[in-house]
Amino acid sequence: MTTGNINVSVENIFPLIKKFLYSDHEIFLRELISNATDATLKLKHLTSIGEAKVEYGNPVIEVRIDKEGKKLHILDQGIGMTADEVQKYINEVAFSGAEEFLEKYKDSKDTGIIGHFGLGFYSAFMVAKKVEIITKSYTDAPAAHWTCDGSPQFTLEEADKKERGTEIILHIADDSTEFLEENKIRELLVKYNKFMPVPIKFGTRTETLPKPEDAKEEDPAPTKEVDNIINNTEPAWTKQPSDLTDEDYKNFYRELYPMQFEEPLFHIHLNVDYPFNLTGILFFPKLTNELSIQKDKIQLYQNQVFVTDNVEGIVPEFLTMLRGVIDSPDIPLNVSRSYLQADGNVKKISNYITRKVADKLSSLFKDNREDFEKKWNDIKIVIEYGMLSEEKFFEKADKFALYPTVDDKFYTFEELQEKLKDNQTDKDGKLVVLYTNNKEEQHSYIEEARTKGYEVLLLDSPIVAHLIQKLETEKENISFVRVDAEPIDNIIKKDEEKISKLSDEEKDKLKGIISESVPQEKYTVQMEAMDSNAAPFLITQPEFMRRMKEMNATGGGMFGMSNMPEMYNLVVNTNNELVSQILNTKTKAKQERLIKQSLDLARLSQGLLKGEELTNFIRRSFEMIK
Amino acid sequence: MTTGNINVSVENIFPLIKKFLYSDHEIFLRELISNATDATLKLKHLTSIGEAKVEYGNPVIEVRIDKEGKKLHILDQGIGMTADEVQKYINEVAFSGAEEFLEKYKDSKDTGIIGHFGLGFYSAFMVAKKVEIITKSYTDAPAAHWTCDGSPQFTLEEADKKERGTEIILHIADDSTEFLEENKIRELLVKYNKFMPVPIKFGTRTETLPKPEDAKEEDPAPTKEVDNIINNTEPAWTKQPSDLTDEDYKNFYRELYPMQFEEPLFHIHLNVDYPFNLTGILFFPKLTNELSIQKDKIQLYQNQVFVTDNVEGIVPEFLTMLRGVIDSPDIPLNVSRSYLQADGNVKKISNYITRKVADKLSSLFKDNREDFEKKWNDIKIVIEYGMLSEEKFFEKADKFALYPTVDDKFYTFEELQEKLKDNQTDKDGKLVVLYTNNKEEQHSYIEEARTKGYEVLLLDSPIVAHLIQKLETEKENISFVRVDAEPIDNIIKKDEEKISKLSDEEKDKLKGIISESVPQEKYTVQMEAMDSNAAPFLITQPEFMRRMKEMNATGGGMFGMSNMPEMYNLVVNTNNELVSQILNTKTKAKQERLIKQSLDLARLSQGLLKGEELTNFIRRSFEMIK
Repeated sequence: MTTGNINVSVENIFPLIKKFLYSDHEIFLRELISNATDATLKLKHLTSIGEAKVEYGNPVIEVRIDKEGKKLHILDQGIGMTADEVQKYINEVAFSGAEEFLEKYKDSKDTGIIGHFGLGFYSAFMVAKKVEIITKSYTDAPAAHWTCDGSPQFTLEEADKKERGTEIILHIADDSTEFLEENKIRELLVKYNKFMPVPIKFGTRTETLPKPEDAKEEDPAPTKEVDNIINNTEPAWTKQPSDLTDEDYKNFYRELYPMQFEEPLFHIHLNVDYPFNLTGILFFPKLTNELSIQKDKIQLYQNQVFVTDNVEGIVPEFLTMLRGVIDSPDIPLNVSRSYLQADGNVKKISNYITRKVADKLSSLFKDNREDFEKKWNDIKIVIEYGMLSEEKFFEKADKFALYPTVDDKFYTFEELQEKLKDNQTDKDGKLVVLYTNNKEEQHSYIEEARTKGYEVLLLDSPIVAHLIQKLETEKENISFVRVDAEPIDNIIKKDEEKISKLSDEEKDKLKGIISESVPQEKYTVQMEAMDSNAAPFLITQPEFMRRMKEMNATGGGMFGMSNMPEMYNLVVNTNNELVSQILNTKTKAKQERLIKQSLDLARLSQGLLKGEELTNFIRRSFEMIK
Repeated sequence: MTTGNINVSVENIFPLIKKFLYSDHEIFLRELISNATDATLKLKHLTSIGEAKVEYGNPVIEVRIDKEGKKLHILDQGIGMTADEVQKYINEVAFSGAEEFLEKYKDSKDTGIIGHFGLGFYSAFMVAKKVEIITKSYTDAPAAHWTCDGSPQFTLEEADKKERGTEIILHIADDSTEFLEENKIRELLVKYNKFMPVPIKFGTRTETLPKPEDAKEEDPAPTKEVDNIINNTEPAWTKQPSDLTDEDYKNFYRELYPMQFEEPLFHIHLNVDYPFNLTGILFFPKLTNELSIQKDKIQLYQNQVFVTDNVEGIVPEFLTMLRGVIDSPDIPLNVSRSYLQADGNVKKISNYITRKVADKLSSLFKDNREDFEKKWNDIKIVIEYGMLSEEKFFEKADKFALYPTVDDKFYTFEELQEKLKDNQTDKDGKLVVLYTNNKEEQHSYIEEARTKGYEVLLLDSPIVAHLIQKLETEKENISFVRVDAEPIDNIIKKDEEKISKLSDEEKDKLKGIISESVPQEKYTVQMEAMDSNAAPFLITQPEFMRRMKEMNATGGGMFGMSNMPEMYNLVVNTNNELVSQILNTKTKAKQERLIKQSLDLARLSQGLLKGEELTNFIRRSFEMIK
């Protein structure tokens, strides 16, 4: 038996790292600036604990393009490296310097300095044919100059750099010259480094100074070249909520989304350090019902470095409609979404975010209900979606989710039950909640319900069919019925005798006459003794079928319901005067004309009169008023 | 100056490979079965060229679960390895065995055998705490037994395995026991290996045999345990189109999408080997206008191994609505989408697919126009989207894209121009194409156009505003106008004198009267001398504003147009009898009533009478017929 060590041959692993580890070439800049930041923060830490006997000062990181020389320079004023350290941290790939550093200073609580030092550096070879490091340690050791052309061979020699810190020089490869363009580099710096903790200088800009007092009118104002700093080193989410005003949050929102002109409705400040580390600010934007392409998404950071704006798997799906930032070193990167979803830590993060959002909504509701009601229509889609998809969220939201009526009253579910129970409990003891999804389209039906003193909810979210289906299951003895599902007295059946002006014989006769003039495959004729003032003809659509079709259309419901034909009832009000008139009309032609015109008007009321039939109806009506 | 080699220390690179290289744990099975397939196909190759003096036979790959022992076995009957080869291929990580093999046999054309041999094997450690290899080469060398527990240390000893081939034994780790479930393994095999070229056995199934002739009535039919083979080793796309019937393509479609009950409209067989290798079959499904969640997507394979069903970047966006498979070894994997889009090879593949689809559509159009017309409504969304997004596709599609009329005639653009030029060229020499997006809603306007003998196109795709905008720019002297944009005689202006029954003085007076009774912020009153039979009042909406709003709604158009209020013209037909009557009515109240009812009817015709106003209109109308 042989034993031995598996051997990784460097000639082959090197291209692998270059090619596979980072698929997005542009992230090389993020990695190098992260390293520069780590080197600076390490020095800060060492000076603060007295380990480094130097002045920390006000270090900046500088990015400089040398277009002629086809070089990109990244300079920092951080901890620097001795030749030995270069040998250790750079020449030994996959040796994570940051880990060793962390181990050494792990009790000092300053975990923000754990960076990506180590492998990230090699991402430089994705865009550079040759890389140089010129570095001077904060100690007395001489500066070192390291050079490598992407083969495993390097050279290392002394350099005469005097100032502390590291300069990385990338000799940009011919297929990567885009990274010598000022616009490209600025774009990357803004994308990845906008909120990093050490100031990053990229070029200079001209600042206008106040004129000296003795200047003449025609003298130009003096100007000054100042460093152009591209980042905000202390973004709002790194501060304590108590140190921030409402205006600060709004300003931060504008900083995050400069193209977004509308203000957010409110924010949620996230801040937890056990069992995982997470900070962030989420904003509720005004959400319209169009669920179109979402550009301004939640951004994920790790220690103030932008990682991605795809938070799928980390943030529960119903909250991906929000905006803002999440910053957590505990979210594994470079892993697939399906892996993320199975990760226990990530699941905890997701649950924490859900809980915080629910708590915030709950306190907004309790602290200022009036304001909460005003915002309801802009936030309801998130809350309703959350109630459908996360059971825990449902339990909390059930206390503050609102049910608005057509006349702009807002009830919680509990209040709704209380309000309706006297008037809208039917003879079998079931509470019937009336609703409409469109005040305009169902206007005449809503009016009928209101003449009875009933409340009508306005539920117009695209997922409302699913929500009421869930509510009917969760709650006891309650049913939701749309106002046009049946004549109002049949929706909420009371123990009242209905008196019909027509005898049973007359009703049968009338039913026969009307059925003959009406397309039977579409309408089922139904005789009802209704209020004599109610419309003579009324078209209704039963709740169950319609709701199932709606659920089908938005995913869910019973399979195949969306292919069922639309079926309606034609309800004939046997107590309406016009209906008696139809029955008693002697000439067949006139009778048919009356039925036709009445049916057309009933269909118009349900939005069912269209096309040629509508054109003919209008033409007829113009003739009638002449 | 020092020079030296960058050193990759294995203790650190090993977890890196395990963790980062493959983020999706489940792909370990795909990798191991790919290796087994490569080993089998290598043997096939060597026997076919006489290099291996053994019988190839009918080798299968077997996957076996040992739930009690917490082990998963993968066995092949392929080329096998000697102890030296294990040392070379397994112990030297990142040494690609397949590459060396390819180099050796590169002239033999059989490039299908280039596999993932090498690194893929180590993905086993993502789910196993210990891995064994028991392998016997096709040569005389003794079998070898390799064991490793995920640390860089391995053991290698002789084994007594007699049959040729390799057995991999995974001792499944405690956090990965899902991979001991039969359902999970079957799911993975079906997902990744459904079309691999060597039969894969997973368990057995019972097959019923015919009864022997002398069996009694009550005797049960005899049964037999047979190998359960999970894959089709020769999927349709690996064959020549000439060897396949239409039925074969349909069967393959059902094999790909077992849950899809509708048949595809037609297929496109892709087959190219220069400058890149690609085979595949694309299917055009029936596409509805709902662009909802697409489950059955195009699948990407590499040498019959499933890779992903996310083909974004590889297939042009407008074709991602199609279904089918693409198999190409030339598409780089494990790279980001933005990288893919910049890759020259991938760009060529995408262009090739676009060209093939355009050619197929063109030949369908030429070979059987009637059938093409029947399919048009199901495929137009792809073609129109392609015309908007790919200039080269536009050029080709311009010859076969169809423009249907409201009475189901279909014109190409050229035919349309020819057909319309005599009757629909206006007095300035501009060809005016009339269209509607909804036959029902715009019925009365369509009727008006047809009484003039004009053709009206039915253009109802959601992106049609963008398409006609493009056509107006590409083509000369042509404009598209929706039928309700203006009175028909104003849309296509001819050199005809219009005679008004009313004098200018009367018109001014009438305009004043009507403007007073009509909400001015919504309607601009416009007097027109139209046909006396045309409607007295007509509501129109100018083309430009409406189209810009529509383009805004689907992305594009002029910024901010979607916030503009809806503006309409109220066109008063000064030659209609009712209009004269309004002018001559003496009592103010009656005049207002006439105007109100006429306006309501005109609004009804445009779908603008809603809510309370509609309810009141209906109530009034019921009163009128009593």
